[in-house]
Amino acid sequence: MNSDTRKLLEAVQQGAMSVDDALLAIKKEPFADIGYAKVDMHRGIRQGAAEVIYGAGKTVAQMIGIVGVMRQHGQKTILITRLSPESAAEIAAVYPLDYRAEARCGIIGDLPEPDGIGRIVIATGGTSDIPVAEEAALTAEVHGNEVLRLYDVGVAGLHRTLYHMDDIMSASVIIAIAGMEGALASVIGGLADCPVIAVPTSVGYGASFGGVSALLSMLNSCASGVSVVNIDNGFGAGYLASMINHMEVKK
Amino acid sequence: MNSDTRKLLEAVQQGAMSVDDALLAIKKEPFADIGYAKVDMHRGIRQGAAEVIYGAGKTVAQMIGIVGVMRQHGQKTILITRLSPESAAEIAAVYPLDYRAEARCGIIGDLPEPDGIGRIVIATGGTSDIPVAEEAALTAEVHGNEVLRLYDVGVAGLHRTLYHMDDIMSASVIIAIAGMEGALASVIGGLADCPVIAVPTSVGYGASFGGVSALLSMLNSCASGVSVVNIDNGFGAGYLASMINHMEVKK
Amino acid sequence: MNSDTRKLLEAVQQGAMSVDDALLAIKKEPFADIGYAKVDMHRGIRQGAAEVIYGAGKTVAQMIGIVGVMRQHGQKTILITRLSPESAAEIAAVYPLDYRAEARCGIIGDLPEPDGIGRIVIATGGTSDIPVAEEAALTAEVHGNEVLRLYDVGVAGLHRTLYHMDDIMSASVIIAIAGMEGALASVIGGLADCPVIAVPTSVGYGASFGGVSALLSMLNSCASGVSVVNIDNGFGAGYLASMINHMEVKK
Amino acid sequence: MNSDTRKLLEAVQQGAMSVDDALLAIKKEPFADIGYAKVDMHRGIRQGAAEVIYGAGKTVAQMIGIVGVMRQHGQKTILITRLSPESAAEIAAVYPLDYRAEARCGIIGDLPEPDGIGRIVIATGGTSDIPVAEEAALTAEVHGNEVLRLYDVGVAGLHRTLYHMDDIMSASVIIAIAGMEGALASVIGGLADCPVIAVPTSVGYGASFGGVSALLSMLNSCASGVSVVNIDNGFGAGYLASMINHMEVKK
Amino acid sequence: MNSDTRKLLEAVQQGAMSVDDALLAIKKEPFADIGYAKVDMHRGIRQGAAEVIYGAGKTVAQMIGIVGVMRQHGQKTILITRLSPESAAEIAAVYPLDYRAEARCGIIGDLPEPDGIGRIVIATGGTSDIPVAEEAALTAEVHGNEVLRLYDVGVAGLHRTLYHMDDIMSASVIIAIAGMEGALASVIGGLADCPVIAVPTSVGYGASFGGVSALLSMLNSCASGVSVVNIDNGFGAGYLASMINHMEVKK
Amino acid sequence: MNSDTRKLLEAVQQGAMSVDDALLAIKKEPFADIGYAKVDMHRGIRQGAAEVIYGAGKTVAQMIGIVGVMRQHGQKTILITRLSPESAAEIAAVYPLDYRAEARCGIIGDLPEPDGIGRIVIATGGTSDIPVAEEAALTAEVHGNEVLRLYDVGVAGLHRTLYHMDDIMSASVIIAIAGMEGALASVIGGLADCPVIAVPTSVGYGASFGGVSALLSMLNSCASGVSVVNIDNGFGAGYLASMINHMEVKK
Amino acid sequence: MNSDTRKLLEAVQQGAMSVDDALLAIKKEPFADIGYAKVDMHRGIRQGAAEVIYGAGKTVAQMIGIVGVMRQHGQKTILITRLSPESAAEIAAVYPLDYRAEARCGIIGDLPEPDGIGRIVIATGGTSDIPVAEEAALTAEVHGNEVLRLYDVGVAGLHRTLYHMDDIMSASVIIAIAGMEGALASVIGGLADCPVIAVPTSVGYGASFGGVSALLSMLNSCASGVSVVNIDNGFGAGYLASMINHMEVKK
Amino acid sequence: MNSDTRKLLEAVQQGAMSVDDALLAIKKEPFADIGYAKVDMHRGIRQGAAEVIYGAGKTVAQMIGIVGVMRQHGQKTILITRLSPESAAEIAAVYPLDYRAEARCGIIGDLPEPDGIGRIVIATGGTSDIPVAEEAALTAEVHGNEVLRLYDVGVAGLHRTLYHMDDIMSASVIIAIAGMEGALASVIGGLADCPVIAVPTSVGYGASFGGVSALLSMLNSCASGVSVVNIDNGFGAGYLASMINHMEVKK
Repeated sequence: MNSDTRKLLEAVQQGAMSVDDALLAIKKEPFADIGYAKVDMHRGIRQGAAEVIYGAGKTVAQMIGIVGVMRQHGQKTILITRLSPESAAEIAAVYPLDYRAEARCGIIGDLPEPDGIGRIVIATGGTSDIPVAEEAALTAEVHGNEVLRLYDVGVAGLHRTLYHMDDIMSASVIIAIAGMEGALASVIGGLADCPVIAVPTSVGYGASFGGVSALLSMLNSCASGVSVVNIDNGFGAGYLASMINHMEVKK
Repeated sequence: MNSDTRKLLEAVQQGAMSVDDALLAIKKEPFADIGYAKVDMHRGIRQGAAEVIYGAGKTVAQMIGIVGVMRQHGQKTILITRLSPESAAEIAAVYPLDYRAEARCGIIGDLPEPDGIGRIVIATGGTSDIPVAEEAALTAEVHGNEVLRLYDVGVAGLHRTLYHMDDIMSASVIIAIAGMEGALASVIGGLADCPVIAVPTSVGYGASFGGVSALLSMLNSCASGVSVVNIDNGFGAGYLASMINHMEVKK
Repeated sequence: MNSDTRKLLEAVQQGAMSVDDALLAIKKEPFADIGYAKVDMHRGIRQGAAEVIYGAGKTVAQMIGIVGVMRQHGQKTILITRLSPESAAEIAAVYPLDYRAEARCGIIGDLPEPDGIGRIVIATGGTSDIPVAEEAALTAEVHGNEVLRLYDVGVAGLHRTLYHMDDIMSASVIIAIAGMEGALASVIGGLADCPVIAVPTSVGYGASFGGVSALLSMLNSCASGVSVVNIDNGFGAGYLASMINHMEVKK
Repeated sequence: MNSDTRKLLEAVQQGAMSVDDALLAIKKEPFADIGYAKVDMHRGIRQGAAEVIYGAGKTVAQMIGIVGVMRQHGQKTILITRLSPESAAEIAAVYPLDYRAEARCGIIGDLPEPDGIGRIVIATGGTSDIPVAEEAALTAEVHGNEVLRLYDVGVAGLHRTLYHMDDIMSASVIIAIAGMEGALASVIGGLADCPVIAVPTSVGYGASFGGVSALLSMLNSCASGVSVVNIDNGFGAGYLASMINHMEVKK
Repeated sequence: MNSDTRKLLEAVQQGAMSVDDALLAIKKEPFADIGYAKVDMHRGIRQGAAEVIYGAGKTVAQMIGIVGVMRQHGQKTILITRLSPESAAEIAAVYPLDYRAEARCGIIGDLPEPDGIGRIVIATGGTSDIPVAEEAALTAEVHGNEVLRLYDVGVAGLHRTLYHMDDIMSASVIIAIAGMEGALASVIGGLADCPVIAVPTSVGYGASFGGVSALLSMLNSCASGVSVVNIDNGFGAGYLASMINHMEVKK
Repeated sequence: MNSDTRKLLEAVQQGAMSVDDALLAIKKEPFADIGYAKVDMHRGIRQGAAEVIYGAGKTVAQMIGIVGVMRQHGQKTILITRLSPESAAEIAAVYPLDYRAEARCGIIGDLPEPDGIGRIVIATGGTSDIPVAEEAALTAEVHGNEVLRLYDVGVAGLHRTLYHMDDIMSASVIIAIAGMEGALASVIGGLADCPVIAVPTSVGYGASFGGVSALLSMLNSCASGVSVVNIDNGFGAGYLASMINHMEVKK
Repeated sequence: MNSDTRKLLEAVQQGAMSVDDALLAIKKEPFADIGYAKVDMHRGIRQGAAEVIYGAGKTVAQMIGIVGVMRQHGQKTILITRLSPESAAEIAAVYPLDYRAEARCGIIGDLPEPDGIGRIVIATGGTSDIPVAEEAALTAEVHGNEVLRLYDVGVAGLHRTLYHMDDIMSASVIIAIAGMEGALASVIGGLADCPVIAVPTSVGYGASFGGVSALLSMLNSCASGVSVVNIDNGFGAGYLASMINHMEVKK
Repeated sequence: MNSDTRKLLEAVQQGAMSVDDALLAIKKEPFADIGYAKVDMHRGIRQGAAEVIYGAGKTVAQMIGIVGVMRQHGQKTILITRLSPESAAEIAAVYPLDYRAEARCGIIGDLPEPDGIGRIVIATGGTSDIPVAEEAALTAEVHGNEVLRLYDVGVAGLHRTLYHMDDIMSASVIIAIAGMEGALASVIGGLADCPVIAVPTSVGYGASFGGVSALLSMLNSCASGVSVVNIDNGFGAGYLASMINHMEVKK
């Protein structure tokens, strides 16, 4: 703020700006500032990073409009999450869209080269968790991360989890995705020595209560280094994992 | 019922019993019958089995009275659960009581020789779960079971759990006791091939909600062969484990 | 682990194995071990035991693929749970499938002869609980158990429950299945002297909350020897009952 | 209202009362007026019926004041519920108070003769439910009912319940009081053919959630003729039972 | 039980019946026996009382079968609740069925003459509560009660409630039915001096949580004489109201 | 009440009215009074105010009937909320209806001129909250308020919120509408110095629990001057905002 | 902000202040700046308005410190809420404190003259709600409002509520405070035609769940013009009521 | 594991170690082995990193014992969390303990030099959140992080939050700690472009439900890059923040 306001004050001092104009400018300033920082994070930090559109609750027309503006501003890669096949087909008629049915995501543009600290490992307890995992994986990939998928390694067959221990130990960040009892996050958190982002899923029945059981289990994990995002929030986990995996770049 | 009622009917047929007396006997019979089975289970099946008094909410006078009646009927071993040190001291003034402070249990009489199918393994996630585990262990022991205690083997340090795999695989029945995220039951259920009785505990804070998180986690366990009892219900788990561990005897 | 590692060490001592190969073998060993035990439980213990496929969330193609692998490995009996009539019809076009609509289960291969300790009694509170009960019954039967079905014996007409008391007392293990207030588990637990596995169902309306009322009721059962599985989890109850009913065989 | 207002109107008609005096009297009346119905129910219907003071959250001074007003208005019997021993002692220094510690209730004046249709049976699942039961029993007794207490007849020992079937069948109204799984209400509702008022209690631990488990169980009772009051609300049950037991009188 | 069993015993005593035949008869009797009381309540007490079939979860074939058995046993009036229009049409092809779409109930046979103590008043908070109210009303009517319907008298327009105070005060029993905040039960309970049966409904949105808000409100009612049944349980309320309204008859 | 009752008493005094007729009149009077006040509030206070019909759960016929009565009584503007497009089309065939699809509301008649203290600002966190916001906005407009819509100004992009601070500070009353975490209400409450009505919406997924998360967040707002209405209750917020915005008029 | 910053800019324009000094002043200002609006609301609008200190979780030293700063800035009236008697005694040793034990509030300085639009009516369901009501009343009074207290007018004795209808209709704003079933808010909302602020209280037992029952009831109120604040939040209700009651002043 | 086991195998190969001794060593190793990764993470990566003892539920003797073992193994810095002043005093009699009363933490040994990527900012909504914040801050400091504390910057006074925007933007990782409505995490998440770890606290009353409101709010945060740990889990947040802040070091 200092430099901008200094210039403004100097303009007033020198009579180049009226008091009223300066007053208006100062009043508006803090907010332009704040917005800038935020916008910059999405767009300006690195070349090639993607923008993400949360598709749920948006009409096809709205999504096409947003994509248009983004591309006008030079955005190379755009990810649309929570996108139905029907909407995807309509968008694909306007823009070249790579639709990934399992993740319910569409990608416009190329995936960037991975440039993170290391590899993001995405593990799921079962096969039903894969849609959430793929949303996380694509989010990480469009933000420039190498992703290793370890699906169906739940603790009911603990040997499957342990079989992949080398992969688990090699990760820079791990996203542990599970429904039902959600024990995968604790078990992986107890094996790994990197940040673990736990994603409860709504997979299950009865007392799984749409993901609440897994959510509580993950929040109460005794393992250190585990944090949790919302039920089924693959995007949030992929985005945060990318942030962490680009820590060294940021400085 | 058949044989008793037949005798009764024959007595009526032969004039050895009045209709009124028979009517009364038949009216009372079903309930004596039903009660008998239940009582027999506690007392009659095997020599040496114990009776259990649930101490919570009972006055010292009530407990002393119940113990007196039991001993009059020849009961050798009596376990009192949920017994405070203060009450224990008062009872110990009347009967020889072996008070186990950690389990908050008192034992009157000798522990019977183990006579079950195999060994009951009792595992806990942490040290704070030990009181519940000891209540389960004593309950199993007073009912004639060999018990192996594996405490503080929670999944946050998965190697501790795995280190005891031989013990786990050797069990006839396993009682898995954990608070917080309760993942121990799933991990053990995924390793063992015997019945696993899961006991959620109220150990934890925040979103553990007094054991609800562990309870839900255990109910949703993906591992086969796992069932659940009430939060902190060490007695229930020990009693059921003993039942299962004496299956061959029953036939 | 001892015998395998001993052989390996002796091979190193005798120069028959390089240090690098031994190092790799030791590193992989614990997990092969662990996996082995688990797999063995499903398959190796007894002749004729079945494998179970949890059909929910699996495509027909996936299920046909899994069945193929299992039969290649010599599996005689396969149970598929949570199987829709439509999927069943597609599978039946490839493999001989005995579809039980009420249980929403399909069976490939013959049911094995019962070889358990005794008889598993499956009781339901009402007729709406029967699908869950049939899932439990078939699970028990494909694992080699004699099953007695006592349906619609809920406590609202207590005489119906009591009428079957001989059957209840004759059971080796009882599975008590009920929705609404779930009192059946307590009443049977108060009559029987064998393990009772309680299955809450989502049958009901209003404050039954999709099975929560029955679940809580069963968890709080005052009767000894009662444990609980997830809402509507007929498979889990049947599998555990079979485990308990084969206790003597295992030793 | 009718008779009092009628007299007043007749006095105006006959010139025995001025319009202004009548206006004032009527203005004050609605209180006594709409209230009259309620008050009448408590006081006017039968000789000897009691008033009840809910003691929780009232100071001793407030309670003594209310008792004073009631006695000034000729109230013979007064019941104070939720009354601590300390407060009881202070009140007893002013008025002759019969304090029942187990019910935490105090009675001033004599119990009226029972004049209801029949007998109110009050059954509890365990001994810990007795305080709630005694609150219900005293409430019923001060309103002129014969009460039969059947304590500790819970379904975990079903024979105890059945043993008292004659008593249960003889009841005019039954109050079924239980904590934990609350199955007593369903079992009694399935045996009896009279109104059953279910009172969940906060007795229990773990997943009993302070009475919620029993409450849900009772609300979902499959038995006809069962309704429910708030957790631990002995007074409410006793009061309603008395209302029902005096139905014929009312007409 | 006495008279039937007495005859049987006398027949044995007099040699008119063999011991084996008597044994068989007695063995079957407990059914009719303990059941007798229940069945008698439904059927035997008064001429003309109806039986009720809970239609939810029953197939048309099952319902037709049950109706057939009931009519064979001389049942004149049968009420089927929770009956869809489609099922009703199928049943109507076999038996003369009077289908009430609003209540989702069907009636076979004539309504009996009212023979209760007084009149049952059924009040609802809004028009959306009417289906539950009609289920209650028909249940009461088929059991021989005069019913007064006061619909849409909720407290948001308190004058509507008060306008009907004469009706409210005239009731023998009141059924107060409301969703949303459920205040109707408290307001009516505060006006009336007869038993009030509160029925929460699932009418509402947002924080009404499918009837939980109304349920809690009714359970916590400060008014005396109020008890609660399950959410949307019109049948339960109507049945209990009839029981209470026939108290004098029972003695 | 005084003047009416005085006249009545004088009529009795003068013999112009019988005691019985007066008794009946007095008994009915309080309630007619009360009703009057309520009706007057909706209709009589100001010229031009609208009536609102809550369309959910009403048939088209019912709505057309109510509109007819209202128009007969001279009502100029009528708002129908929660109105489906299909029902709207049917009503539009009878009355001139301006249907706003986004708000799911229909308006019959003209909007009145704004005559409130100031301007009502309606802010939403996202675009998915707009239907609720439009229901609030139309409700406010039909009651004579100027409305400023600030949509999609949620705190995830705080600069968007701050950008509109002048508008926020200019408001007479603010309606803050948000789903998910509902933080908008606190942020606006922390900026503004006028009453803030918070409306949680059911927008979200996972642990938003259909609006519960936003509801709790808003109830716990640390900012002063914030109160909350039911989830998705746009009408309630708009109505209350109008009440507040017409405070000076009322006096 | 305008006037202060304008002066500063004019000083720079006129050379009376250096750019560096102005820069420093502006940098500090936003605090006073955005904050100004809030602070002004508390302090600047009218003479004599009070500041409020939320005492919970603050040490006596902290509270004394804050009071000191406020008084240095010329604050005449200060209200401290949630203040224990012990802390009050310590503060009273330093500043003249008027401690109201029932409200658990302390007042330093004089109450201002009421200058609002009209009168704030504060009604409670029972006597146990009075502490919350007094917190609301004092908050309103220190902000310059006339307050009418209507305590213990709950709907269980509806005539008590109706008796005060004139007072209710005369209110500018009503605060309705109740625990248990919280019906008071709906009943008053159905009578009054002014904004009603509902305050659920934690008064009650059993299924009142610490105020949740009342909270839900109030959120679901069918009456228009009702909004809700947090459980026991007397301050919030009093503050908002004062805001609304000073609407005309603000313009 | 490799290097240690390799040496051992080489010793066997070279005859320097018997097979039996090697077998014993390997059998013990898995502990150190699979455990090695975890232990190494805590201890081996950098000089000076601390070990943490979770003090809750541990006796003083247990804690002193664990400290002893740690120090024997050369641990320089040890943090004990959830440590009461009484226990701290007892430990301080044995080891030099720096007790921080506000954080309820004790430190043995010196804090290491910060060696992370950047600075961890810890922000709280209010002063009552400070104990949780201090637990997080000390955890981060003993693991070698520079920590900036921004306390009492909650959104109810949004200008306070904004005033510190430079600090917020400068952070490497942010820990946002708040009770009540928990909006701080969303606001900071909407401002910052680094990972935000949200910690709900149990600060609040009424509908804050011991931290549940803040927890849900944080889980539903619309801001990207936000994840959540358990209620009041300052340690977990500090540990994870340190992990992220040392990402570049790890590679």
